[in-house]
Amino acid sequence: MNNKVKFLQQNAPCYLYEEDSIKEHCHDLLNAMPGMDFLYSAKTNPFMPVLKTVAEQGFGADTASANEVLIAQKAGIPYDKIYYSAPGKTLQDLEKVWGKCTIIADSLSELARLEQCAAVKNERIAVGVRVNPNFSMNGESAVSSKFGIDEDQLKTANLCFPHLKIIGIHVHLRSQILDADILCGYYRNCYMLAERINELNGVEIQFINFGSGIGTVYDRETEKPLALERVGQTLQTLRAKNHNGLQAKFILETGRFVVCNAGTYYTRIVDRKISCGKTYLVVQNAMNGFLRPAIAELLRQNVGEFPKNGQEPLYTTGSQSAFRIVGRNENCETVDIVGNLCTALDVMAKNITLPHAEIGDILAVSNAGSYGCTLTPLLFSNQETPKEFLWTKENE
Amino acid sequence: MNNKVKFLQQNAPCYLYEEDSIKEHCHDLLNAMPGMDFLYSAKTNPFMPVLKTVAEQGFGADTASANEVLIAQKAGIPYDKIYYSAPGKTLQDLEKVWGKCTIIADSLSELARLEQCAAVKNERIAVGVRVNPNFSMNGESAVSSKFGIDEDQLKTANLCFPHLKIIGIHVHLRSQILDADILCGYYRNCYMLAERINELNGVEIQFINFGSGIGTVYDRETEKPLALERVGQTLQTLRAKNHNGLQAKFILETGRFVVCNAGTYYTRIVDRKISCGKTYLVVQNAMNGFLRPAIAELLRQNVGEFPKNGQEPLYTTGSQSAFRIVGRNENCETVDIVGNLCTALDVMAKNITLPHAEIGDILAVSNAGSYGCTLTPLLFSNQETPKEFLWTKENE
Repeated sequence: MNNKVKFLQQNAPCYLYEEDSIKEHCHDLLNAMPGMDFLYSAKTNPFMPVLKTVAEQGFGADTASANEVLIAQKAGIPYDKIYYSAPGKTLQDLEKVWGKCTIIADSLSELARLEQCAAVKNERIAVGVRVNPNFSMNGESAVSSKFGIDEDQLKTANLCFPHLKIIGIHVHLRSQILDADILCGYYRNCYMLAERINELNGVEIQFINFGSGIGTVYDRETEKPLALERVGQTLQTLRAKNHNGLQAKFILETGRFVVCNAGTYYTRIVDRKISCGKTYLVVQNAMNGFLRPAIAELLRQNVGEFPKNGQEPLYTTGSQSAFRIVGRNENCETVDIVGNLCTALDVMAKNITLPHAEIGDILAVSNAGSYGCTLTPLLFSNQETPKEFLWTKENE
Repeated sequence: MNNKVKFLQQNAPCYLYEEDSIKEHCHDLLNAMPGMDFLYSAKTNPFMPVLKTVAEQGFGADTASANEVLIAQKAGIPYDKIYYSAPGKTLQDLEKVWGKCTIIADSLSELARLEQCAAVKNERIAVGVRVNPNFSMNGESAVSSKFGIDEDQLKTANLCFPHLKIIGIHVHLRSQILDADILCGYYRNCYMLAERINELNGVEIQFINFGSGIGTVYDRETEKPLALERVGQTLQTLRAKNHNGLQAKFILETGRFVVCNAGTYYTRIVDRKISCGKTYLVVQNAMNGFLRPAIAELLRQNVGEFPKNGQEPLYTTGSQSAFRIVGRNENCETVDIVGNLCTALDVMAKNITLPHAEIGDILAVSNAGSYGCTLTPLLFSNQETPKEFLWTKENE
């Protein structure tokens, strides 16, 4: 029995994040898109050893709460590589992160709050604004959004503040783009947006945060990976234009690209039973260990099939996770994998084919590195909470 | 300004559970169904002051994990009023609760595990079995279930164990029944089931846990409360039959009846903005404060309307929670209530009409007493977690 299997038998239910795979994904981005500044999206997986691994590759942090700013700082990321962008920041939030990151204002009233804070402190600070642009991801016209300030509103607003200078924009319209044409068109539109915003009084663009959009492959059989090189070429062209134009820093957020398929959720089969001819494998911590599979089954039950469109971050596709039984390959059977909570919705997968498993076996659920542990109602029914581990060479 | 408003302004986002209302719901059940033993379903809301309040009314505990058994014990509930029923209990779970509750075996393999445990300890213990009966809630034939042992399997299994005696059954088929006819028919079927199980070798029925099914009214405009008195009459008739028959203890679980509408979630409006003509109120801790509203909107988005059938415990109806702005009654407007997370799914309600609200106002969300805090991914994005409070006369 190898070390990993022993480890899992001792520690399941648990999340294992593979250090090698995380580093490889970081380098894929760095190699394909040289000259870009990458921010790791801390909300996808804020587990400290993961954050530290990403930080060591030179990545900054895209943080979405005041506490995420502090966590990024703790992971060793310098303040000038931490960007804080979220709707509804309070005065308390702003106080908590003051001087620790670049704040991206999400609304006109937040710009006023920032001005008020800076005035009280008698400081002049550089901030960004999140923009809801006059285009959508596919290049169509704008749609209303809870995020950012409409481009048209920015154009008519007073952006000259005594204690603020607006030095950058942040745009993010959709996650999980695997089509390079769409993503490249979007990046070109973002650059032109930055040029337009730069014309406004009170603004001097020094950075463009293009947001994410970089898609992760959940299902290798049906999805083709994003052509990173083609995206990189477009960004090179934009950088050449930028060199003679805005001279702004280019920022990309990693979304879930770095860690999603570097993580696996492992849980233990604690019972097997047959009811009315159907075989059930009962596992520990299903819905309260890794929520996304239960949401996929909830949607299938209500829609009649797995929805085609992702509902990020709760659901991506019907094949968003692969299931396997560690160390078993034979005697396949059709089973429902259910959790040990007292609710019928506590399901990981219905009618799937797996090798015959026994009580004590370990179930592996793939693509659990992002929006896994962090997006799960871990406290439900007061069961023990799954642990998280970074799996490194030293563990082998 | 009254004390509660002051309290909310200091403490939102928070859950407030009204002690008076909890007690009233307990007494509604006790008055309508005298002679029954009630178990509070701890998983609906395991907040200790709530558990203690319910325990003081003489209620026992329906526990669904080993830790819930310990929590019930800590709340002062005696061991003979704590029942532990859940699929997939491990040897470790059984060790943890040994002697602290009545264990309801959920499968034939669990009966074998229990026998093994008791044999090692050289004890003979009384246990129950959860049964998947040969009928459904509506009286139709059985459906497969992850819960319990099929009635037909029980009839052919060997239930004579040297160290176990089976003294009761537990049945639970569906929650949230508001139709007294359906519930009464189900209770009658459960009693007859107990009579059939009592005929088996190795079984001597001393208790019948009818499970729950007692429905809570989420929406007073469209739902009629369950006629508790009629249910009570049926149970009286069954008790008379039982008096000359099985002489078993009758147990009912409270489900969410006791605490659901005794609880309200309060959160703070931290921004308001208009985007492409649509008004957004941004609140703290939406999806990561109270998950159920976000699930309702997720289902609406995918199904095209709010589904008619509940998906308990994640979703009940489109009108499962009412929204109001504390202290505001005028100048109604149509808004989206969204959370401050960086995800578009972080929504509490779309296109609802509310009095005009300003930043700093408090939003109240009703029916948050059960499956509220406990069923929410509180850690997502590392925001501060909502607090919970029992609101008593002394707070007024």
